[in-house]
Amino acid sequence: MNTDDKNHVTANARRQSPNSDNVTARPLGQASRLWGGRFEKSTDAMINDFQASIDFDKRMYREDIEGSTAHAKMLAAQGIISDDDANKICAGLQKIREQIDAGEFEFSVELEDIHMNVEKALTDSIGAAGGRLHTARSRNDQVALDTHLYIRRQVREIQRLIAELQTALVNAAEKNSDVIMPGYTHLQRAQPILLAHHLLAYFSMLQRDFERFNGVYQRADIMPLGAGALAGTTLPIDREFVARELNFNAIYSNSLDAVSDRDYLLEFLAAASILMVHLSRFSEEIILWCSREFSFVELDDAHCTGSSMMPQKKNPDVPELVRGKTGRVIGHLTALLTTVKALPLAYNKDLQEDKEGVFDALDTVKFSLAVFAQIIDGMKIRRNNMRRAVEEDFSNATDLADYLVKKNLPFRQAHEVAGKLVHYCIERGVYLKDLSLTDFKKFSPLFDADIHDAIKPETCVAARNSLGGTSPQQVAAQISAARTIIDTQRKI
Amino acid sequence: MNTDDKNHVTANARRQSPNSDNVTARPLGQASRLWGGRFEKSTDAMINDFQASIDFDKRMYREDIEGSTAHAKMLAAQGIISDDDANKICAGLQKIREQIDAGEFEFSVELEDIHMNVEKALTDSIGAAGGRLHTARSRNDQVALDTHLYIRRQVREIQRLIAELQTALVNAAEKNSDVIMPGYTHLQRAQPILLAHHLLAYFSMLQRDFERFNGVYQRADIMPLGAGALAGTTLPIDREFVARELNFNAIYSNSLDAVSDRDYLLEFLAAASILMVHLSRFSEEIILWCSREFSFVELDDAHCTGSSMMPQKKNPDVPELVRGKTGRVIGHLTALLTTVKALPLAYNKDLQEDKEGVFDALDTVKFSLAVFAQIIDGMKIRRNNMRRAVEEDFSNATDLADYLVKKNLPFRQAHEVAGKLVHYCIERGVYLKDLSLTDFKKFSPLFDADIHDAIKPETCVAARNSLGGTSPQQVAAQISAARTIIDTQRKI
Amino acid sequence: MNTDDKNHVTANARRQSPNSDNVTARPLGQASRLWGGRFEKSTDAMINDFQASIDFDKRMYREDIEGSTAHAKMLAAQGIISDDDANKICAGLQKIREQIDAGEFEFSVELEDIHMNVEKALTDSIGAAGGRLHTARSRNDQVALDTHLYIRRQVREIQRLIAELQTALVNAAEKNSDVIMPGYTHLQRAQPILLAHHLLAYFSMLQRDFERFNGVYQRADIMPLGAGALAGTTLPIDREFVARELNFNAIYSNSLDAVSDRDYLLEFLAAASILMVHLSRFSEEIILWCSREFSFVELDDAHCTGSSMMPQKKNPDVPELVRGKTGRVIGHLTALLTTVKALPLAYNKDLQEDKEGVFDALDTVKFSLAVFAQIIDGMKIRRNNMRRAVEEDFSNATDLADYLVKKNLPFRQAHEVAGKLVHYCIERGVYLKDLSLTDFKKFSPLFDADIHDAIKPETCVAARNSLGGTSPQQVAAQISAARTIIDTQRKI
Amino acid sequence: MNTDDKNHVTANARRQSPNSDNVTARPLGQASRLWGGRFEKSTDAMINDFQASIDFDKRMYREDIEGSTAHAKMLAAQGIISDDDANKICAGLQKIREQIDAGEFEFSVELEDIHMNVEKALTDSIGAAGGRLHTARSRNDQVALDTHLYIRRQVREIQRLIAELQTALVNAAEKNSDVIMPGYTHLQRAQPILLAHHLLAYFSMLQRDFERFNGVYQRADIMPLGAGALAGTTLPIDREFVARELNFNAIYSNSLDAVSDRDYLLEFLAAASILMVHLSRFSEEIILWCSREFSFVELDDAHCTGSSMMPQKKNPDVPELVRGKTGRVIGHLTALLTTVKALPLAYNKDLQEDKEGVFDALDTVKFSLAVFAQIIDGMKIRRNNMRRAVEEDFSNATDLADYLVKKNLPFRQAHEVAGKLVHYCIERGVYLKDLSLTDFKKFSPLFDADIHDAIKPETCVAARNSLGGTSPQQVAAQISAARTIIDTQRKI
Repeated sequence: MNTDDKNHVTANARRQSPNSDNVTARPLGQASRLWGGRFEKSTDAMINDFQASIDFDKRMYREDIEGSTAHAKMLAAQGIISDDDANKICAGLQKIREQIDAGEFEFSVELEDIHMNVEKALTDSIGAAGGRLHTARSRNDQVALDTHLYIRRQVREIQRLIAELQTALVNAAEKNSDVIMPGYTHLQRAQPILLAHHLLAYFSMLQRDFERFNGVYQRADIMPLGAGALAGTTLPIDREFVARELNFNAIYSNSLDAVSDRDYLLEFLAAASILMVHLSRFSEEIILWCSREFSFVELDDAHCTGSSMMPQKKNPDVPELVRGKTGRVIGHLTALLTTVKALPLAYNKDLQEDKEGVFDALDTVKFSLAVFAQIIDGMKIRRNNMRRAVEEDFSNATDLADYLVKKNLPFRQAHEVAGKLVHYCIERGVYLKDLSLTDFKKFSPLFDADIHDAIKPETCVAARNSLGGTSPQQVAAQISAARTIIDTQRKI
Repeated sequence: MNTDDKNHVTANARRQSPNSDNVTARPLGQASRLWGGRFEKSTDAMINDFQASIDFDKRMYREDIEGSTAHAKMLAAQGIISDDDANKICAGLQKIREQIDAGEFEFSVELEDIHMNVEKALTDSIGAAGGRLHTARSRNDQVALDTHLYIRRQVREIQRLIAELQTALVNAAEKNSDVIMPGYTHLQRAQPILLAHHLLAYFSMLQRDFERFNGVYQRADIMPLGAGALAGTTLPIDREFVARELNFNAIYSNSLDAVSDRDYLLEFLAAASILMVHLSRFSEEIILWCSREFSFVELDDAHCTGSSMMPQKKNPDVPELVRGKTGRVIGHLTALLTTVKALPLAYNKDLQEDKEGVFDALDTVKFSLAVFAQIIDGMKIRRNNMRRAVEEDFSNATDLADYLVKKNLPFRQAHEVAGKLVHYCIERGVYLKDLSLTDFKKFSPLFDADIHDAIKPETCVAARNSLGGTSPQQVAAQISAARTIIDTQRKI
Repeated sequence: MNTDDKNHVTANARRQSPNSDNVTARPLGQASRLWGGRFEKSTDAMINDFQASIDFDKRMYREDIEGSTAHAKMLAAQGIISDDDANKICAGLQKIREQIDAGEFEFSVELEDIHMNVEKALTDSIGAAGGRLHTARSRNDQVALDTHLYIRRQVREIQRLIAELQTALVNAAEKNSDVIMPGYTHLQRAQPILLAHHLLAYFSMLQRDFERFNGVYQRADIMPLGAGALAGTTLPIDREFVARELNFNAIYSNSLDAVSDRDYLLEFLAAASILMVHLSRFSEEIILWCSREFSFVELDDAHCTGSSMMPQKKNPDVPELVRGKTGRVIGHLTALLTTVKALPLAYNKDLQEDKEGVFDALDTVKFSLAVFAQIIDGMKIRRNNMRRAVEEDFSNATDLADYLVKKNLPFRQAHEVAGKLVHYCIERGVYLKDLSLTDFKKFSPLFDADIHDAIKPETCVAARNSLGGTSPQQVAAQISAARTIIDTQRKI
Repeated sequence: MNTDDKNHVTANARRQSPNSDNVTARPLGQASRLWGGRFEKSTDAMINDFQASIDFDKRMYREDIEGSTAHAKMLAAQGIISDDDANKICAGLQKIREQIDAGEFEFSVELEDIHMNVEKALTDSIGAAGGRLHTARSRNDQVALDTHLYIRRQVREIQRLIAELQTALVNAAEKNSDVIMPGYTHLQRAQPILLAHHLLAYFSMLQRDFERFNGVYQRADIMPLGAGALAGTTLPIDREFVARELNFNAIYSNSLDAVSDRDYLLEFLAAASILMVHLSRFSEEIILWCSREFSFVELDDAHCTGSSMMPQKKNPDVPELVRGKTGRVIGHLTALLTTVKALPLAYNKDLQEDKEGVFDALDTVKFSLAVFAQIIDGMKIRRNNMRRAVEEDFSNATDLADYLVKKNLPFRQAHEVAGKLVHYCIERGVYLKDLSLTDFKKFSPLFDADIHDAIKPETCVAARNSLGGTSPQQVAAQISAARTIIDTQRKI
């Protein structure tokens, strides 16, 4: 983009200079048509801006060069271009990549997109041979190839970040393996659980996210090049060569499908949305836990901001932002579904709208995962507050009944006794643990001195030893299984 | 629902009698509070309606009974209840299932949901033993189990319907394997293609849908029972027994996750939305093809409606409806993502909102697939109109250039000649095929008598013989591969 | 719907008998086509079900009859039909309305929609004259008219319910006008506020909702009849007569627009979504306030459910459901926007998808408003808990600084002193109020005996007396203004 | 943003350098924590980037300065700061505005947002007085004020662009007032209409858009400043002064509401979505009309792109892009609704997510309107093709029947005759116009020589003279009314 761009008008929020909208409001006088006065640039320039994608598709420069290199090698291997031309092309592309890596490449809006920016630079650099690169290829299959390569790489990056957040969770679970907290349903205290158990629930959710991204990867891992504009090519290309070169597992078997398929992007956005929904739930909990009322955790200072006015304020900004950004990713999913809806085959310009939302979702997901791992690592657990909370409730009432059942009282009667005891406590403003053995015996002669032990939170937790339950034994098994899973994931 | 229900007020559009809203508008006078006059029923009744789910969750009655039967058997196998009680329970449940199958079961809104309706009927029928069924189980894990079973079954049903639509497509492709039509980009004629090639693009899309539903199945195929309310149970249950009994491939390893996970529903809605987007694209094309302007196909009368006024009208109602219903399914996806966003663990009542949208999406997808297979089967191809369309354009200009390249003219010059010829034609209002050999020779001496053959649509189509291209050979290969794929799918 | 309908297959979740999906899964053997085995009914029947709308549009029966009556009167006034015929038609329609009101009308799916059900019954009842009702009208403009009438009436109903919820809020604010609670930002305690002030924030939000629904009403209040199928009619109708008869404020000035406009439904769904977002925020707060950790309010038993297992549980089901249903309404908005996107003029069958989501949103909004008014009325405020919460924080630190400023200490120094005092307290585990005057004087000699009064929550609240602030004076002014607003609204 | 920013990692797609994701993939070795290797910057820097909003909120610099200037004047008027300080502040702010206007201001990410960037520059420039600007204000009410001012201005800009597109439509309608084309329902030819009538349907839709933006304006036109952080301020501010100074029509009456309200943004996105849906419908039609099959219009070359390969291609890129971008705006609406859902009062960091989507929607809407006006102005109408299309159908069958009715044949018999004649034509492959008077008389003796005139498209169109119908008289009335409306709009 050249330096005169400061004031130019664009449909694209990404390129906004601060006073971009100023321009649209400043009538220029010389315009003869009504709307003309709104714009400084000629029609062509405005339309060009509206259409150009270089501003966002330049981030696929590496994939564009990688794909073109493979294409050139194949053309030479098939005798469609000479080996000499292919060598020149590959060397020229490598040089361009280095320039862009180094931030020394000048992108041009007039050249519309990354493909034409690179091709123009190549021809400028190596001459006529550059013009042969586009043989047996159209921009329709080229952009499809670039996007597949890009998404494939990014999905693996996301999976690595998922594994790292999972590691942070397992570490925190292990480190706090004896911390008891209230388990909630309807945000009401329900039964005592281990904090580790709670953290590992998120491990499981993230595990499904990981698997879903495997599905996204699989659908992105199909090679579109060779589809031409829509119907294939008359030249004797070898698509399998390109697929091998770029390490694709499959090849589109229908050329119309190859250039019009956006499934892998929709599926990526769906997987990203579900992942963000998971993080939004965790964010909500951390925000609750940071509140004065819960006081279950304290975030690291680095993950909070304060207030210039109120010295006591320490706001959980990062989880709030992650929660907020969930809407953003869901919005991108809605957007692309709506855009693709009812489009006839094969390529339509509408499909150019497929990238910005996906790129923004990618960035959002990656950063949310990364900062969440930080939050978990840096979060201080206030174990005493959690423990105290567990005692101020009747979440052990079920265990009281179970105590009597083990002494052979029929279940139904046992529950009735427990209910009456709870009622007795509420009237007196005490909890079950506060009753004396004498009190207990008033309700049933089966109570013994071990009753106080039986209704301790530790006892309640330990008793929920069914597979996947909250007992220390089950939680230890979860941790161990989680470590194995993470080790496996690292190998993808 | 009792027979006095005619006028009752409900939040639920499903149960609306035609004059339901009449009631809310008719102030009753006796109400002392402002809003009270709006409603005939007491608070409790209105709230109960607002909360009850029986109206929509009754469709899972088979799964509820199947799950309860497995649970009862496990309880007996573990000695938690007696074999005698288990037998009574299983027999009682079977009888209830038969009653519902036969339409002879009376559902009650007061009993809120399918679980309590069945349990009450069971206890009424077999007495005390019925009360033991709920041992070591809560409604939280019970409803999760039912929904998993239901979705698992429905996903397979959808996959079968996908395979049937794919079969219709392959049949149509084979039957019309020599029909040539214009291929489009930007809804502009681009290059001649085979109709079969176009139809098979949808085969490929549906194939990815099929695979995505495998992913949904996999995430639904996890057994939640035994999670209790949220933390597991103190009773010595055997979750693996239940999983085997109900043919589950996996068991939730974390009880909190088991009761709060809605991923499989979100993922189902995402897969359903992408599928509907595919069908909406096909619908759009069929609607275009039915227009007077295209006149490429004629739908069977059974799939159209006419107009009472205009005898010429034959409206493609079914594809229009499928296209329209795409929005509906996308809406259900947005709804559930929004509902689950930021919910703390474990169960919250919000999650009850997970079913209606999913059920409606299920029905929509199943019917859309089924009617689409009908449409394809019944659709009359107007091959002459398609063939004629191909001749009225310059989509063979690339092939003209290729002709010269094969006679050793450099590519760049060949393209220039082709360009000039096209321009020459446009000025005269003719097409390339209309030029005489003399005309051609004016532009290049390399043209010979075979030029007219070389630019025939049939020749152009045959020449695009790259893998996945539109040539008859490639299309035949696609058809053959498609048949193999369908055979494999039938085995799931 | 006739009684044989039990097993019929339908795309429509609304009509599901519990075993509806059973049917689709039960192969019938006799079917020769692959998919045919899935369905018991012939093609026509299945397609008919897919297309019929009577199941949901019957709720507009009153509007259909109202519109037809006005149309018949106009036809007679213009001499297009005879007065005698018009009289017969009007009387016949009135009789049908009474039948439906009384629940004695048999709707038929074969007659597709409410319009044809009514017209058929009319012709059966009054003979040939019934056939003249549809003169100079098509179903396209008829259904548009019905929907406009229906939405117009429902919008007013929603506005009345908004006013009633606002009344509940103002009543609660007045009744608890001296209750102090913590005001939050980032869910961290920020500054003490009046509970009344907090409640009135929702009054203001609802006020904007009320105004937005005025906009919806205005866009629904346009008369479409007379547009015919799309282009108007050749008969000498008088659209202004019909508009007057039905009390419309405006008439569509373009017939194509009249039959294809769905703006008023989109706008309704947008207004409904924003309203539900408001209620979801309030729901979230009530759920928080009901938690053990906050303990700020207690809901009426009628608005909660308990747990069969845990005697202590009292779940805030109703606000949870309202929060959950917010997603549902947003989903309906997304759905209709997506459905209408890219539809060419004029009518397309896709537009039939406009009703179910809107009807469901209507019901959801009306019930959410009604139950919320109940919740507010029945909610017990735990004022002591709120008051206690305010003292356990440093939300009065700003007021401490202001104290010194009023004694002429420069602002910057005053803030520094306050900061140091807060730090001093935190180290000692006390609050500002716990410090003695001696303590205070260590930090500044300007402190006097009145300092303890100055930092009392009551003082802090009273001091925020800027327009719209939380002081009792400002809140009283809000209450008074709110009463006036409600009185005005009652008059619409 | 400083010049070292090239490689920095950000969650924000807007700031992407092409190799931004490269960075996250390049492990740095020195990191001790798992995820640490992903990022070059320290924790604080990454979090800071995640939180900073300067990159997108800098576009509100003018509003920030405008609001601060009004605030400073009020503080002086109320004696809260000295006149001298206020003067210094106002002059300093004006200088900063000029710097930014000129593109000479250096924005800093460390200073987070536009407010702190401006305040820091002010203090650097005028010293201590700059620090007094923030008296009696918090960033919560400041950012609310800026956004209200910004949206208010942008809404008016959008309304002006709507009026300009409407003007283009009316001009085109007038210029082509005698062009007849087929009117469609279900994309099937239905009845002949005037092209002008079709274009004016969009005028009407845009008119409702204009009115909806009036509603958005009204809800944006409420002054939030003075709400402080959430509860008002203890200082004697004058909010009415600020409202007058900034030309606000209303003031938030509740401080909590003032800082947490995002209604006007949600409502803006809803209005923008509906507008885009309108333009998507028009886009769809223009794309259809540009197809070879319709050939109704030809776009100006400046609004199309060609193909490097196929000389005949002229793709309607601009309407395709507008249609595609509709999804984008709907996505932003979904995103913000989801983000605000279930947020407790008052401010939460999630609300920072309110701007990027809104800004992008603003840009998209403005450019779509502007390019659409260009398209209409530049579009060549192929009137002969439209006229020819009208003759190749039976859309005049209704008029044939009407002819007989006027000769006193009962309506029912007339329709029967028309139906038989249509059938007779179809069997012979001709149209009604091709029949001789002898042919006509075979079906009814009432036909006379004037029958051929009676079924001409011109006659059919002229006959639909009901209010809002397609007759030239009605269309002329629409044009005249439209001109009056536009004149009124220009005055806002």
